[in-house]
Amino acid sequence: MMECPFCNIINKKTDAHIIYESERVIAFLDIDPINEGHILVVPKVHEASIDKLPLIVLSETMQVLQKIVSAFKETYHMDGYSIMQNGGEFCDFGHAHFHVFPRYRDDGFGWKYPEGPFEYSKRVAERIKENFRVYDVDSL
Amino acid sequence: MMECPFCNIINKKTDAHIIYESERVIAFLDIDPINEGHILVVPKVHEASIDKLPLIVLSETMQVLQKIVSAFKETYHMDGYSIMQNGGEFCDFGHAHFHVFPRYRDDGFGWKYPEGPFEYSKRVAERIKENFRVYDVDSL
Repeated sequence: MMECPFCNIINKKTDAHIIYESERVIAFLDIDPINEGHILVVPKVHEASIDKLPLIVLSETMQVLQKIVSAFKETYHMDGYSIMQNGGEFCDFGHAHFHVFPRYRDDGFGWKYPEGPFEYSKRVAERIKENFRVYDVDSL
Repeated sequence: MMECPFCNIINKKTDAHIIYESERVIAFLDIDPINEGHILVVPKVHEASIDKLPLIVLSETMQVLQKIVSAFKETYHMDGYSIMQNGGEFCDFGHAHFHVFPRYRDDGFGWKYPEGPFEYSKRVAERIKENFRVYDVDSL
């Protein structure tokens, strides 16, 4: 079974560039950064979903995210930042982690939206209209 | 000047489907959901960046996110969830808000990555190799 790479960093089996560490939370550089400074803030407990984590762990996680945003502002001339966490089956390695990284105008990052409600309605309307014929009354 | 739509919801000038409200934090359905159940968790103070918010507000925000994930699990047969917050210039209306929504396999949602470090290195290597000639030693 594949070992959890985050647990390996927590257990010091793997090196990482650690920014912050306490009894409950660790933060280190992402090895595949979206932008320079991309950090993962990781509760030490191995759980895939935040509802499984004690509130004190989550509060500390949020505090670390906040302090990282402050540090970004002093380190980079960034235009903003993004925070992200994917849970459940979308959580890599089944170990909850929050991404936080500096953002710049035109940095190419964004969300890949599924078809939104407007596009959905437009497509449904078009499909119905294809099968919708207003017959000339005289031809009936 | 455009009024902040989130402040308008907080000040009851605009209707919203409110899931939770306290003195510090409000949570309501996003009007343009990525998936059914898409909720915005919004600190009531109008600030574009989490470093400007008191820790107690952020702790409560995280607690609300956690409780929403629990509620999703009881409401939907989802495969996971995503949480997202864009700060600074990437924060719509300059009022910090956390997105949280159920996720399903093949729901079409994802991140739009900029060119990653591997692709970047690949492109750089290809460019250099274009100008890199190994001359036949006999031709010198």
